[in-house]
Amino acid sequence: MNTIYFTPGPSHLFSTYQKHLMEAMNLQLGSIYHRSNTFKNIYRHTDEQLRILMDIPSTHAIFFASSATEIWEKIILNCVDQYSFHLTNGAFSTKFYDVANALKKSPSQFAVDEGQGFNMNEIILPEATELICTTQNETSTGVQIPVEDLMMLKKKYPTKLLCTDLVSAAPYAAVDHTLMDCSFFSVQKAFGMPPGLGVWIANERCLDKANLLKDKGLNIGAHNTLESYFKNYKTFETPSTPNVIAIYILGKIAEDMNNLGLANLRRELDVKAGMLYDFAKQHKDFEPLVKQEEHRSKTVAVFNSVRPSAAIIAAVEQHHMLIGSGYGKDKASQIRIANFPATSIQQMEELINVLNTL
Amino acid sequence: MNTIYFTPGPSHLFSTYQKHLMEAMNLQLGSIYHRSNTFKNIYRHTDEQLRILMDIPSTHAIFFASSATEIWEKIILNCVDQYSFHLTNGAFSTKFYDVANALKKSPSQFAVDEGQGFNMNEIILPEATELICTTQNETSTGVQIPVEDLMMLKKKYPTKLLCTDLVSAAPYAAVDHTLMDCSFFSVQKAFGMPPGLGVWIANERCLDKANLLKDKGLNIGAHNTLESYFKNYKTFETPSTPNVIAIYILGKIAEDMNNLGLANLRRELDVKAGMLYDFAKQHKDFEPLVKQEEHRSKTVAVFNSVRPSAAIIAAVEQHHMLIGSGYGKDKASQIRIANFPATSIQQMEELINVLNTL
Repeated sequence: MNTIYFTPGPSHLFSTYQKHLMEAMNLQLGSIYHRSNTFKNIYRHTDEQLRILMDIPSTHAIFFASSATEIWEKIILNCVDQYSFHLTNGAFSTKFYDVANALKKSPSQFAVDEGQGFNMNEIILPEATELICTTQNETSTGVQIPVEDLMMLKKKYPTKLLCTDLVSAAPYAAVDHTLMDCSFFSVQKAFGMPPGLGVWIANERCLDKANLLKDKGLNIGAHNTLESYFKNYKTFETPSTPNVIAIYILGKIAEDMNNLGLANLRRELDVKAGMLYDFAKQHKDFEPLVKQEEHRSKTVAVFNSVRPSAAIIAAVEQHHMLIGSGYGKDKASQIRIANFPATSIQQMEELINVLNTL
Repeated sequence: MNTIYFTPGPSHLFSTYQKHLMEAMNLQLGSIYHRSNTFKNIYRHTDEQLRILMDIPSTHAIFFASSATEIWEKIILNCVDQYSFHLTNGAFSTKFYDVANALKKSPSQFAVDEGQGFNMNEIILPEATELICTTQNETSTGVQIPVEDLMMLKKKYPTKLLCTDLVSAAPYAAVDHTLMDCSFFSVQKAFGMPPGLGVWIANERCLDKANLLKDKGLNIGAHNTLESYFKNYKTFETPSTPNVIAIYILGKIAEDMNNLGLANLRRELDVKAGMLYDFAKQHKDFEPLVKQEEHRSKTVAVFNSVRPSAAIIAAVEQHHMLIGSGYGKDKASQIRIANFPATSIQQMEELINVLNTL
């Protein structure tokens, strides 16, 4: 019997995933040349469908990498001479900051406790800041930055490059890409695909910065630089041989989501998120980690658990459903439940019913 | 009707690929957590089977990246302070050299013309060389370095790190890994898989070098550093969320190849290579680019063509077979034919029959 994965990534596969995979096999897409017209048309289609789905303006290009972790590195190398500024409130936003340190930059951070959101009025950037790094949805703690707050940040500091991590938020988060210089996500979260593909959305201000750094003689990397991405993008090519099949399926799933309508998908996710948080508020053994409602992620819910998470997870697994533990040091004391489009309202109901019987 | 891909990568899928993919779907491997025991057992199995297949000693670890292009970058960052030395004789060996330049190192090269091999006696390393970069099989021109020559190089310079690009050669090339500090390949060549996974084989001398560079304060990258690879490898984990399904299938195909016996696979490739080169030598319109027999690749054959390659490729395609053009500037004047395990002796016969009718 199949398991329903409510884990926050890798997660349950989208209902149409396997159909598209079979079609890719029938079309022999695993063998096509990545400089062929067949591939270029695949890239073009995926680009078009993501653009429609996420309202990505023509000022931005869409690139493919292997993971968001890779993209962290490439953003810092290409967009920062010395000073990135990081809003940190959990493991992943902190890892982004750590990447800047590892790359010998001089990042600074505005850190709040895990489970906390940010008050944008409190944030004062160092004058020399080049890039503001935000994590719209902190997957480790289930804290979101309201998209309005991101806009506020950009309006307060319009000359700084602004970047946001949408790893477990895309395509749910209604980010205004006209105010976002770059953003990125992984396909194994809300798009319901297996891991192996990251997506980087960037405008030419990011490219200009990379060119400036290169002209200064800085090491901006050799593989997947913005220069090579933008150059290849003109003909819908990639710098090196990419994960062709994943790019094809991402386009197909984005098309499916467009046909379903993102507004409908969001409504369903809102309903399921409401069910999840209501459950935790009412249950004596669980409580939402995130206290402020506007900072609660709609796509990754994190609950403090009175009982050890391993016991809860094992009990739920008896019912062929899998939920996640807390992340890192909170592994034993929290559970994490993904609320992605691949699971239905009915499945979420079943999960909550099971949790209520424990 | 299905096409038989004789293109030098992406290429024809191995006969068991789709079976393993379906099994991965049935096992829901697209949703599993990459820190779970299920994943660790997959990594362990793939590691074991590759180790048997390619005779990789326990002194070496096996890591996963997204592509060989990524691995070029990581090798230079992790194993070179300033001086890498490159044997270049075509597009890919030269790109490896270019990567070192892009990363602000001071590489030097021993270059010979495209289509030429190397006389190891002529190669004198600069004293300060840290890493020797070789390309065992130059996919752009079909030139191989005999594995004995690689051994000779290591014996001549035992204190230098030696690295070889096995992108289109593994698992055919009988490299002595005890003399090779690191090597790497991509799965979309002789392993008959879709692109999206690179494999990096490295020993602890490479790690020691990376640690030395890090201690000196150098930027060795943030993502997929040797430090993070070796640390995660202890428990068969990866630094970040990897292409789980590709890692699973690679292990299964390596196991299939072990069951078939690598000696048998090599014999079959030798037969097919012999057929290909014999054809070109006898045909008035084609001739092998590589003049010296010991430098002729067994896995990628490149022929000068009197007629434009596009016409040849189109004519062959009428018969549901696809061959490659020359690479780069030789696109129009050469054809390239992959000789990988995914195609049979009979299919190679059919291809040659078609080429003979043109």
